[in-house]
Amino acid sequence: MAVVSVKDKQVTIEIGKPTVIIGERINPTGKPKLTAELQKGHLDLVEEEAMIQRDAGADIIDVNVGAPGVNEIDLLPKAVLRALEAAQLPICIDSSNRDALVAALQVYPGVALVNSVNGEEESLKKLLPAIKKHNAVVIGLTMDDVGIPTDPDKRFEIAKKIVERAQEEGIPKENILIDCLAMAVSADPNAGIACLKAIGRVTEELGVGTTLGASNVSFGMPNRSIINKAFLSMAIMVGLTSAIVDPTKEEVVRTILASDFLMSRDPYGARYLKNYRQQPKYS
Amino acid sequence: MAVVSVKDKQVTIEIGKPTVIIGERINPTGKPKLTAELQKGHLDLVEEEAMIQRDAGADIIDVNVGAPGVNEIDLLPKAVLRALEAAQLPICIDSSNRDALVAALQVYPGVALVNSVNGEEESLKKLLPAIKKHNAVVIGLTMDDVGIPTDPDKRFEIAKKIVERAQEEGIPKENILIDCLAMAVSADPNAGIACLKAIGRVTEELGVGTTLGASNVSFGMPNRSIINKAFLSMAIMVGLTSAIVDPTKEEVVRTILASDFLMSRDPYGARYLKNYRQQPKYS
Repeated sequence: MAVVSVKDKQVTIEIGKPTVIIGERINPTGKPKLTAELQKGHLDLVEEEAMIQRDAGADIIDVNVGAPGVNEIDLLPKAVLRALEAAQLPICIDSSNRDALVAALQVYPGVALVNSVNGEEESLKKLLPAIKKHNAVVIGLTMDDVGIPTDPDKRFEIAKKIVERAQEEGIPKENILIDCLAMAVSADPNAGIACLKAIGRVTEELGVGTTLGASNVSFGMPNRSIINKAFLSMAIMVGLTSAIVDPTKEEVVRTILASDFLMSRDPYGARYLKNYRQQPKYS
Repeated sequence: MAVVSVKDKQVTIEIGKPTVIIGERINPTGKPKLTAELQKGHLDLVEEEAMIQRDAGADIIDVNVGAPGVNEIDLLPKAVLRALEAAQLPICIDSSNRDALVAALQVYPGVALVNSVNGEEESLKKLLPAIKKHNAVVIGLTMDDVGIPTDPDKRFEIAKKIVERAQEEGIPKENILIDCLAMAVSADPNAGIACLKAIGRVTEELGVGTTLGASNVSFGMPNRSIINKAFLSMAIMVGLTSAIVDPTKEEVVRTILASDFLMSRDPYGARYLKNYRQQPKYS
C-alpha cells in the first residue's frame, strides 16, 4: 500500500482497492500552447489543467514541464506547487532530469509520487537516495540499459531488481509502483499480452502496486480510445492499481470505475455511482 | 473448434481466434412490438432484424420467438428459415421448448447452433440425442437442478459434466460451447470474478469454446453499457470465443474487435480495421 499526500490530503494506492487515476494532461509533449506558456515561464495553464483534471475525477496530478527552452530545475518546483495549490491533490513529479526532480521534492509539502526510475544502473544510483531522503513514492519502469524486453518474464526481472535495489537503499516496497510499459500492438501482436502478464506477475509475486500509461498500446491504429479502454479493463483485471490517463475523457474514467466494480474493487459500486451522480451529462 | 453453417456459409468458433458475434435482437422478451408481431405469426420484423444485425457485424443470428400466445413448435422453424434467408448467416436456435428446437433443427439447412442445454438430467436426456442426430453445435449453461452455483469451480464441474455427457452421446467436444452465466455484480460483488474464472478454467482445462450474454452483469446499475463493455474485454482476455450481444450498439462490437486485437486474436487488427473502414459514422 502506497500513500501519497499533499498537506492533509492522502491518496492510497493498494492492490485490490479502487484504481487510482493519475491525470496526464500537464505535459507539453505534442501540446504547442502549453509548450509556449512553459517556455515563457507562465503557469496559468498548469493551474487551469490541474483544476480541470481534479473536477474530471483525477486523484493525483502528473506535472511534467520538459520542453526545449525550459529550465526544468527552476520551473518544475514552481509548477508542482502551483498545481497542488490549485487542485489540492497530490502530485506526480514527472521529469527525466534528476536535478529537477530533486528540486521539486525539496519544496513538496507531503509524500510525492516521482515518475520515474528504471532498471539502468545510472538511474537507480542517481535517484534512489533522493527518493529515500524525501520519503517519496517512486515509479519504476521495466526497462534497462538493453531497452524494453518483449519477454514479460524479463520485464518482471527488471521490476524485481528495482524493488530489491530500492529496499537495499532503505525504501520500503510499499513506496514503489511498477510501470510494465504498454507498447504498440500494431507493431507486435504480443505486446499487449506481454504487458498484462508482467502486471500480473508483479502483482502476484512481488505484491507491489503498478501504474500504466495505457495509450501507447493503440499507437498506429484508428479510434485509439476504444482500444485503450479495453486494455485498461484487462489491466485492472490482472491487478493494475493506478492508471496515467486523460481524465477529461469521461469514457476512460467510467471504464476504470466500471472495471473496479466488476473486480470487486469497488464493492456495490459506491465510487461508480458517486461518479454517475456527479456527471449530469452522463449518457 | 466449432463450425456452424448455413448452406455454404461457415462460421468458425475457436479458442484464440476472433470472437464470434451472435446477434441477440430477435427475442421478444421486453419488446412489445416484436411480441405482438410474433403473436400474429408475422415475421417481417424478424427478417428486418436479421438484416440489420448482419449489417452491424453479427456473425450468427440468435432466433427466439418464445412469448405468451405463440406456438413455438409451429413458429420457430419458420422464423429460423426467414432469418437465415434474410441474413444468409448461421442461426442460433434459441428456445426453452425442446420440441420447438427439434422442429427447427429438422428444417435447418446446415449445422445449427442450439441455445441451450444445462446440467439438469432432464435437459441433457431430452436434448442431447437430438443434437447428435442433427449434428448440431450446442450451448451448455453452467446451471443444474440446484441452480447457478456462485462458486466458479462448481460451474466448471457442471461444464465438465455437460461435455462428458455429450461425448457419451457421441457429440464431439468441438460441438459444445459453454455459457458460464454472467450474474448481477450489484447483488454479489464476486459474480463477475466467478464468471471470468469459470470461463478461464473451461478454456484452459476443457479446451472447449465459450459464449456469454454479458449484459446481466450490469443489472441494477446505471449506464450499463460501460460495465458490459469492460466485462466483455475481460472475458475475451480469459478466452471467451463468442458473445451474445446487440450488434447495433456499435461500441459493443468495437470493444470486442479491440479486445481481440489486444489479445493477438486478430493479428495486426485486420478485422478491426475492416470494421473501421466499413463504418462511415465511426467517430
